[in-house]
Amino acid sequence: KQYRIAVIPGDGIGKEVMPEGLRVLEAAAKKHGVALHFDHFDFSSWDYYEKHGQMMPDDWKEKIGKHDAIYFGAVGWPAKIPDHVSLWGSLIKFRREFDQYVNLRPVRLMPGVPSPLAGRKPGDIDFWVVRENTEGEYSSVGGRMFPDTDREFVTQQTVMTRIGVDRILKFAFELAQSRPKKHLTSATKSNGISITMPYWDERVEAMAKKFPGVKWDKYHIDILTANFVLHPDWFDVVVGSNLFGDILSDLGPACTGTIGIAPSGNINPEGNFPSVFEPVHGSAPDIAGQGIANPIGAIWSGAMMLEHLGEKEAGKSIVEAIERTLAERTLRTKDLGGNADTTACGKAVADMVD
Amino acid sequence: KQYRIAVIPGDGIGKEVMPEGLRVLEAAAKKHGVALHFDHFDFSSWDYYEKHGQMMPDDWKEKIGKHDAIYFGAVGWPAKIPDHVSLWGSLIKFRREFDQYVNLRPVRLMPGVPSPLAGRKPGDIDFWVVRENTEGEYSSVGGRMFPDTDREFVTQQTVMTRIGVDRILKFAFELAQSRPKKHLTSATKSNGISITMPYWDERVEAMAKKFPGVKWDKYHIDILTANFVLHPDWFDVVVGSNLFGDILSDLGPACTGTIGIAPSGNINPEGNFPSVFEPVHGSAPDIAGQGIANPIGAIWSGAMMLEHLGEKEAGKSIVEAIERTLAERTLRTKDLGGNADTTACGKAVADMVD
Ligand SMILES: CC(C)[C@H](C(=O)O)[C@@H](O)C(=O)O
Ligand SMILES: CC(C)[C@H](C(=O)O)[C@@H](O)C(=O)O
Repeated sequence: KQYRIAVIPGDGIGKEVMPEGLRVLEAAAKKHGVALHFDHFDFSSWDYYEKHGQMMPDDWKEKIGKHDAIYFGAVGWPAKIPDHVSLWGSLIKFRREFDQYVNLRPVRLMPGVPSPLAGRKPGDIDFWVVRENTEGEYSSVGGRMFPDTDREFVTQQTVMTRIGVDRILKFAFELAQSRPKKHLTSATKSNGISITMPYWDERVEAMAKKFPGVKWDKYHIDILTANFVLHPDWFDVVVGSNLFGDILSDLGPACTGTIGIAPSGNINPEGNFPSVFEPVHGSAPDIAGQGIANPIGAIWSGAMMLEHLGEKEAGKSIVEAIERTLAERTLRTKDLGGNADTTACGKAVADMVD
Repeated sequence: KQYRIAVIPGDGIGKEVMPEGLRVLEAAAKKHGVALHFDHFDFSSWDYYEKHGQMMPDDWKEKIGKHDAIYFGAVGWPAKIPDHVSLWGSLIKFRREFDQYVNLRPVRLMPGVPSPLAGRKPGDIDFWVVRENTEGEYSSVGGRMFPDTDREFVTQQTVMTRIGVDRILKFAFELAQSRPKKHLTSATKSNGISITMPYWDERVEAMAKKFPGVKWDKYHIDILTANFVLHPDWFDVVVGSNLFGDILSDLGPACTGTIGIAPSGNINPEGNFPSVFEPVHGSAPDIAGQGIANPIGAIWSGAMMLEHLGEKEAGKSIVEAIERTLAERTLRTKDLGGNADTTACGKAVADMVD
C-alpha cells in the first residue's frame, strides 16, 4: 500500500529541517520497500497568512483530512502574528478538530549528546511522556469582568471530561504494559488544585484496576519536575494533563541535553483522522535562515510517523541512524558541539539508514 | 524590642527539624543581641487532629494572629489525613486568611552540595522565585456534573484578580530592582492558556513601565523549566502564578542538589498579619522518627524570618554558618553524603554562628 503524507513545513526553521526529514524518510522508505507519497502545503505559515489573512484555507480539512499522516515543521512567529492567531489557527486546531488526543514524546539520552545532568549516560534515561492533548488547562472557557478597575478579575476554566481523561489514561496504561518495566507515573497536583486534580487521581485509580500487570505511582507536579532532574532513571511512562504534559515534555528533553532533537506525535489512536508528527522545537526566528538548525527533531518525528503507520522496521532504522550520526562529532550540528550544518547532518542520517 | 514568634512543628520530620532551627535562632539571637520569645503550639498536626477532629482550634487566629512571625515545620500525612483536610486546614488557610500573598524561595547552589547539573559551581546559581500565594490555579471555584456517566465532567477555575496580580508583580519588580543584576523573568503560558495567562502578561508589561531600571523577559513555563536545567545562570528574580511558582520553587532547589535545604517565606509584606517561615520539604513520613532529616531547610527558614523582622545581620550570620557547615562532609546529613544526624548538624550550625 502507498501512504499519503501531507507535508507542512510552516515557519522559520520548520522550512529548513523538513527537507532533511523528507530526505531521511525517502532513504528509509527505499531500503524497506515502503511506498510514501508526499503532498506539500504552504499554509499554516506567516507567508500564507500575509497573503490570505488567515492561517489556513477554509477547506483545510478536505485538503489534508484524508491523508494517512501529517508531517509538520513548526509554526508561530510572535513578532509578526500573535500566538493566538498562529497557533490556535493551526497546530491547536489540528489537535482539537482531528481529535489527536494523545501527545506522545520520548525522553531518551542519546549517544554523543552531553547530558546536563552530572554522570548520566545513554541508557540511564529512557521514558515516554504521554500528554492529554485536547482539553484540561487549554480550555476556551472564561473571561474578564470590571476591566480597568480595582475589581477587575479574569477567570479561565480547566475542563476534564470523563471521556477525555479515561482515553488518555487507557493509552498510557497500554503503553506501559507493552514495555519491559511496565511502570506508569501519573502527574498530579491534587493537594493544591482541589477539584480537577483529585478527579484525575480518581480516574487513574479506576483505570489502574484494569491493568493489574502495571505498577503505578503518582507525584505532585512540583516534586515530579524535581525528580526528573534528580532521578530521571525512575521513569518509564509518565502521563499528565495538557499543561503538565506540556511542561514535562520540554523538561524531559532538556534533561537529556537538548530540545533540538526531540520528536513528537499528536495522535488520534483510532485513525479516524490523520495524526501530526512534528519536532518539539518551534520556529526559532532567532536562528531561522542561517542553515544551522538541528534537523534531528524533524527526522526523529518522521521515524515516529513510520512506526505509527505500522512500518516499525523502517522507523527503527531511522532511530538507529540518528544514534550513529549523533555519535560522530563531525556530523552533529553546532548546538551539539559539532560543525555540520542542517543539510550535512540530514545527509549523514540518510546515509546511515540501513 | 522583643519579637514574639509562634512555633508550630506540625507533623513528621517537622518535629525533628524545628528544635534545631530554634537552637540556631537562639545562638544567633544571643550573638546579635536580638530578643526572641517563642510560644509553642501543637495544632496543625495529626496528633491534634486525632484528639480534636480538626487541624486547628476555632480561635487559631486569636492564638497566633498577633505574633511577629510564625515558624513552621511541616504538615500533612496522607496515609492518615487527606491533604484537603490537613493542608487546606492549616498551611493554605494561613496563606489565605493571613493574606500571605508572597511565597519567596531562594535558589542557590551552596558549597559542599553536589550539583546534579554537570559542571555547575557555587555562585553559578543564585536567584529568587517569587510565587503568588493566594489565588490563581489554587481556587475553590468549580465542580462536577453528570457523575458516573459518559457525560461526566469536572471544571475548576483559575482566578486572577487585578489586585492579586499587581501586588505580587510589584513585590517581584522591587526585589529585582534591589539586586545587582536587576533582572526579572516572568513565567507565562499565554500561548496555550489563552485567557488568564495573556492577562498576566499584560499586567507584567504594565508593571515593567514603573520599573525602567529593571530588565525583564518572559518564558513559557515549558521552556522555562527546560532553561532552569540548561541555563540556571540566566536567572535573578523569577515571578510566577501560584502553580507555576510552586513548580519552579521545587525544580529550582532540585537543580541546586536537594530540596532538603531549601527555605521559604509565606509573606504578608504589609505586616497586617504574621508571615509564615517553613522549609520547602514536607513532613516526609517515610523517614520520620529516625533522626536523620536534614535540618538546614528549617534553619535557613529561620534566617529568612530574622531578615523579614529587620534583623539582617543576625539572619546573615545564620546563612553564613550554614555555608560553613555544608562545606564540611562530617557535618552534613546522610542525604548530602555526610554522616551527621539531625541534631549533630543543627549543633554544628549553631556553633558556627558568629
Ligand atoms: C503542600 C502543597 C499544597 C504546597 C503547595 O502546593 O503550595 C507545597 O507544595 C508548597 O509548595 O508549599
Ligand atoms: C506552541 C504551544 C501552544 C504548544 C503547546 O503548549 O501545546 C507547544 O509548547 C507544544 O508543546 O506543542
